[in-house]
Amino acid sequence: MTTKIKGVNLGGWLVLEKWMTPELFIDTPADDEYYLAHDLSKEAYEARINTHRAEFMTEADFIRMQAEGINFIRIPVPYFIFGDRPPFVGGIEYLDRAFNWAQAYDIRILLDLHTVPGSQNGFDNGGISGVCKWGQEETDVTFVLSVLTSLATRYKNHPALWGIQPINEPITEKMWEIMRPLDRYQARDVKMAEGSRPLTMSFLQQFYREAYKQLRVILLPETVIAFHDAFELHAWKDFFESGSFENVMLDTHQYLMFAEMEGTKQAVESYLTYLDGLGKELAEVAAYIPVFVGEWSLFNSYTAGVDTQGGINPTQQTFEANNRLATSELVEAYQQLWQKSVATWNIGEGHFFWTYKLNIDTINEPAWYGWDSWDLSRCLSKKWAKI
Amino acid sequence: MTTKIKGVNLGGWLVLEKWMTPELFIDTPADDEYYLAHDLSKEAYEARINTHRAEFMTEADFIRMQAEGINFIRIPVPYFIFGDRPPFVGGIEYLDRAFNWAQAYDIRILLDLHTVPGSQNGFDNGGISGVCKWGQEETDVTFVLSVLTSLATRYKNHPALWGIQPINEPITEKMWEIMRPLDRYQARDVKMAEGSRPLTMSFLQQFYREAYKQLRVILLPETVIAFHDAFELHAWKDFFESGSFENVMLDTHQYLMFAEMEGTKQAVESYLTYLDGLGKELAEVAAYIPVFVGEWSLFNSYTAGVDTQGGINPTQQTFEANNRLATSELVEAYQQLWQKSVATWNIGEGHFFWTYKLNIDTINEPAWYGWDSWDLSRCLSKKWAKI
Repeated sequence: MTTKIKGVNLGGWLVLEKWMTPELFIDTPADDEYYLAHDLSKEAYEARINTHRAEFMTEADFIRMQAEGINFIRIPVPYFIFGDRPPFVGGIEYLDRAFNWAQAYDIRILLDLHTVPGSQNGFDNGGISGVCKWGQEETDVTFVLSVLTSLATRYKNHPALWGIQPINEPITEKMWEIMRPLDRYQARDVKMAEGSRPLTMSFLQQFYREAYKQLRVILLPETVIAFHDAFELHAWKDFFESGSFENVMLDTHQYLMFAEMEGTKQAVESYLTYLDGLGKELAEVAAYIPVFVGEWSLFNSYTAGVDTQGGINPTQQTFEANNRLATSELVEAYQQLWQKSVATWNIGEGHFFWTYKLNIDTINEPAWYGWDSWDLSRCLSKKWAKI
Repeated sequence: MTTKIKGVNLGGWLVLEKWMTPELFIDTPADDEYYLAHDLSKEAYEARINTHRAEFMTEADFIRMQAEGINFIRIPVPYFIFGDRPPFVGGIEYLDRAFNWAQAYDIRILLDLHTVPGSQNGFDNGGISGVCKWGQEETDVTFVLSVLTSLATRYKNHPALWGIQPINEPITEKMWEIMRPLDRYQARDVKMAEGSRPLTMSFLQQFYREAYKQLRVILLPETVIAFHDAFELHAWKDFFESGSFENVMLDTHQYLMFAEMEGTKQAVESYLTYLDGLGKELAEVAAYIPVFVGEWSLFNSYTAGVDTQGGINPTQQTFEANNRLATSELVEAYQQLWQKSVATWNIGEGHFFWTYKLNIDTINEPAWYGWDSWDLSRCLSKKWAKI
């Protein structure tokens, strides 16, 4: 690509994560979108979710994104976007509006199917915490392919469409061991979670080939099909070289939390060194497949003032930030991380920050201190970031 | 004051107006907050309103306001803020949070009691369209005084509190004739609207004296008590000079729509000339009472591309903008109006723009073209305004 992706994710909008909009979950025991829909009455659930969708992202946000220099957005969508999976409420009309806003404000869209029935990773962001069973039933796979082709058919000629990503963060054995999703996100229904297990790489590659085959014939040739690396950046050389793919890319998600979990010291210098190493890895991959960083953030334990143990957040466990930096120190640390990160991601095709906004409250609920570095709108206002 | 007020209203947040957040009113026949609460089931109403309050204004907005240079906000609150007027849902906990955000981000608050039982003006923003009966029952007046003293007692020692305004836009005979609220906002319940009439100036001044008396003994001496001029800027000299008031101010609302209704030509030059005249009037008033402009906006029929007949909006009637300016022409027109307006308001103590944000959609619903100039967050992004 001639233009680098200076992008951001619209997380927490059409796909919910409790930590991003905790107020939406109040007065329910729900920890994820699945149980929000099941714990509330139909009337209350629909009123909450529709109000959220109408307010969380509006035209005004697109106007600001353009003004700040953002040229791409990645939009996570749930598998029930078309409204055919009760009790979940579809939301395709909100996505339609977003496409028109994006067109009006010169922003290109990467559609990201972020959840699937039964979940592909067991994370809260897979839609149901502590369950990871997608791919075990053929019907669930077929259903996901039908959602993808329906999205492709609906938007294929829309000038704002840049690409489609068949599935977000499918988990394979490697990350399953590191993240231990079933410990980190406990299933509410133990019986439902039974049989949860990581996907195999061969299943995933087969799914990717099938998704590619079905999408490529629908989409315009210039529309990108992007595959998440399943947290295995270097596992895809043969896949891409042995297939005959047109206009495909690799999406890799890179968080400093991963660096911390792998033992990187919680200090700016160490993060920068880690990013240097990542840059070399990206260069290696970019030699055989265009690669972009579809998710990353400024969040880290050093600026959060506490060891977050891989990004455990206040909806899961509250830490006390015992080492709050001065405002000027925070600005300096974040600016260094921002500049180094963006320079690193630009070794590839560019990046999408996670995320555009969060409805957390660091003042009235100090446990959220430090989590504001996930929120690009705040990072821009605070001069931690500059597109 | 040594510092000018560079302020904005948080309109549409704790007090609803349909045109500001039309999605919140979907699937109901309601045109105002009164009927929204009555048309929806308790469960759906509460879910909508609580989600709206939690999402429409968040800490992130305060961070951005500070970054943009805003030093004051005016917060409209409804008479049922304390939750003692079912079916309306109170919202004092949201106001509490806003006070703490304001303190954290160096913003001072003017509390504005924006609605009263039965309405003080018959506008949609009085809470119930086409009804104007407040002040006819002594109990309603007593109730409003109790809300004011409760607010004063709750926030009197909060560092973010700058002032309290006893009632927004009470209407007297003069504006009653110009705006004709009962024609402009038709009552849904004709019987309830019976007996609607403007307030008399003597009633209003008596109410202001009583509110002053009760508030002054609660509030710190440095906390301002501000009175809206009831759209009669020059009617208050005797009132202020004959009373013995400490630390009071006059609030006047100045919209270009008023200029248009008084016959000003719909053209930038004419608006600028009108603003020159207003400046002279403000200087005259400022000689005997500190005066600020508590509401104004960039909205006008010229840039809207159609005669809006005094700001009639698309929830009331749809006009077709038949003269859309080029982007550069819009920027130039708005910048001229912004600069001239702010310079004029600074003849007094400064200003509060109406409003910080609107959830309208000018792309998917082109009838809203031009109404974006009511939304400061968009005006800033589009470089129409600079604090």
